[in-house]
Amino acid sequence: MSDGTKHIAVIGIGSGDPDQLTLGAVKAMRSTDVFFVLEKGEEKSSLTRLRRTMLAEHVPGPHRVVEAEDPWRDRAQGSRGGYADAVHDWRRRRADICERLIREELAPGQRGAFLVWGDPSLYDSTLAVLEEITARGNVTFTYDVVPGVSSVSTLAARHRVGLNRVGRPIHITPGRRLAETVGNDDGDVIVMLDAHESFRQFAGGGTWIYWGAYLGTPDEILISGPVEEVAEDIRRARAAARAEHGWIMDTYLLRPCGDA
Amino acid sequence: MSDGTKHIAVIGIGSGDPDQLTLGAVKAMRSTDVFFVLEKGEEKSSLTRLRRTMLAEHVPGPHRVVEAEDPWRDRAQGSRGGYADAVHDWRRRRADICERLIREELAPGQRGAFLVWGDPSLYDSTLAVLEEITARGNVTFTYDVVPGVSSVSTLAARHRVGLNRVGRPIHITPGRRLAETVGNDDGDVIVMLDAHESFRQFAGGGTWIYWGAYLGTPDEILISGPVEEVAEDIRRARAAARAEHGWIMDTYLLRPCGDA
Ligand SMILES: C[S@@+](CC[C@H](N)C(=O)[O-])C[C@H]1O[C@@H](n2cnc3c(N)ncnc32)[C@H](O)[C@@H]1O
Ligand SMILES: C[S@@+](CC[C@H](N)C(=O)[O-])C[C@H]1O[C@@H](n2cnc3c(N)ncnc32)[C@H](O)[C@@H]1O
Repeated sequence: MSDGTKHIAVIGIGSGDPDQLTLGAVKAMRSTDVFFVLEKGEEKSSLTRLRRTMLAEHVPGPHRVVEAEDPWRDRAQGSRGGYADAVHDWRRRRADICERLIREELAPGQRGAFLVWGDPSLYDSTLAVLEEITARGNVTFTYDVVPGVSSVSTLAARHRVGLNRVGRPIHITPGRRLAETVGNDDGDVIVMLDAHESFRQFAGGGTWIYWGAYLGTPDEILISGPVEEVAEDIRRARAAARAEHGWIMDTYLLRPCGDA
Repeated sequence: MSDGTKHIAVIGIGSGDPDQLTLGAVKAMRSTDVFFVLEKGEEKSSLTRLRRTMLAEHVPGPHRVVEAEDPWRDRAQGSRGGYADAVHDWRRRRADICERLIREELAPGQRGAFLVWGDPSLYDSTLAVLEEITARGNVTFTYDVVPGVSSVSTLAARHRVGLNRVGRPIHITPGRRLAETVGNDDGDVIVMLDAHESFRQFAGGGTWIYWGAYLGTPDEILISGPVEEVAEDIRRARAAARAEHGWIMDTYLLRPCGDA
């Protein structure tokens, strides 16, 4: 199989619980020569720890870990165009770094891997970055994707609920797009990447929230109930957790009441 | 731990590839005394085979498999209310059967399990059925959920694409609700449970489709391209596959072109 072509595996590792690794992810990790890690400042400690635990436990053979700094990203909450532009620009700089890693840190015929939080298809830039590098054509490699358990599935599992009601649609949206996404139909809404407790828009009644932070980790917090009854609990829990950990990852499901 | 309480694990087993089992799913399966299997006629052969393979490979210890027939479900394509009513009625009858299984086939302190295709939170009735049985109060048990890799994540992985574009929402809908769900905003749309090739609505141009059938299995088929260019290929592939296997499971992602 090693005909000199470099190969990259994009491996979904689940959203926090090491037991969410799939058998396929473990196999892909075991056949990896070089793990590429782009460090993000804020999430550093616990994600790094999780990755180390996984490698130590499942990859006994020889392998290298190459760390690089994730390029700075403009988190300014601008217009929608501004946000997308900032993300695209960040991807370009990420592509520069990853292209260099693949070119310089991977020998011909070797296998590299990116370990991706949750499932690689959900609000993650790794696939877009590899597509961009491929389009540039400066370095030749093949790549494939190992799907993982997303934080959305974990949220539902921990609350023991389905994401949809019978025959109805499901919407997944970044917090900044919540107002536009909700109310188009009778579907449930899952919110990710929300820095602003946007669920407060629904404190007028009629909406049930299933909220979760640090899902799958020992720090997991779960709160559910009518938005107007639990919004304050969630606010307090978020503030306390942020103060303790320095960062927070939370997700929630909004469901019209009566059907809950 | 075994204080006489019965326990049920709802275990997501991935969408067709045995390597999609998580380490947590394997652990949960190994601590299961009785596996409950509700047979669906149409999907019988390959799902049953997959389950047998998984049990044979990962559950060497003593365990029982109890099979029951899945109650007949009215698949008539009625009004929306009619569809939901039919599903609710089917759930009630499923609850009758599962309640009996938990009461009669599980001894005090034993652990039962339902193996669920994909992720249990996505268009699956097992959790609603257990909630209904709990509400009836005729049998006492605890339950938890092991999340799995969904067919949606598998679709994206096999096509090596993300489900969302930068900063935009994602919609997941049953085929019958596609017309209502699309066009509300600039999000991508994933269609499940589509018996009617509803993507043909978009053959007017401007939409890219990533289609997959029997994802994760040896029979997997992948087709992608502008809807107007590949709709006929998909129709032929579906017809041939249905003729060969007697049933089909397919899913697809619709994305406005230009951004593909
Ligand atoms: C950049 S996205 C990546 C999502 C990831 N690919 C997945 O499949 O879960 C990050 C967002 O996912 C959600 N998230 C990821 N992991 C989480 C966890 N362990 N607990 C709660 N939310 C999580 C949060 O909404 C966070 O803002
Ligand atoms: C009753 S739903 C169950 C979904 C499942 N819980 C999951 O997470 O994938 C069944 C629908 O899922 C999709 N599906 C499930 N497995 C699939 C596979 N292996 N290939 C393609 N589509 C699949 C199809 O759209 C099918 O109509």
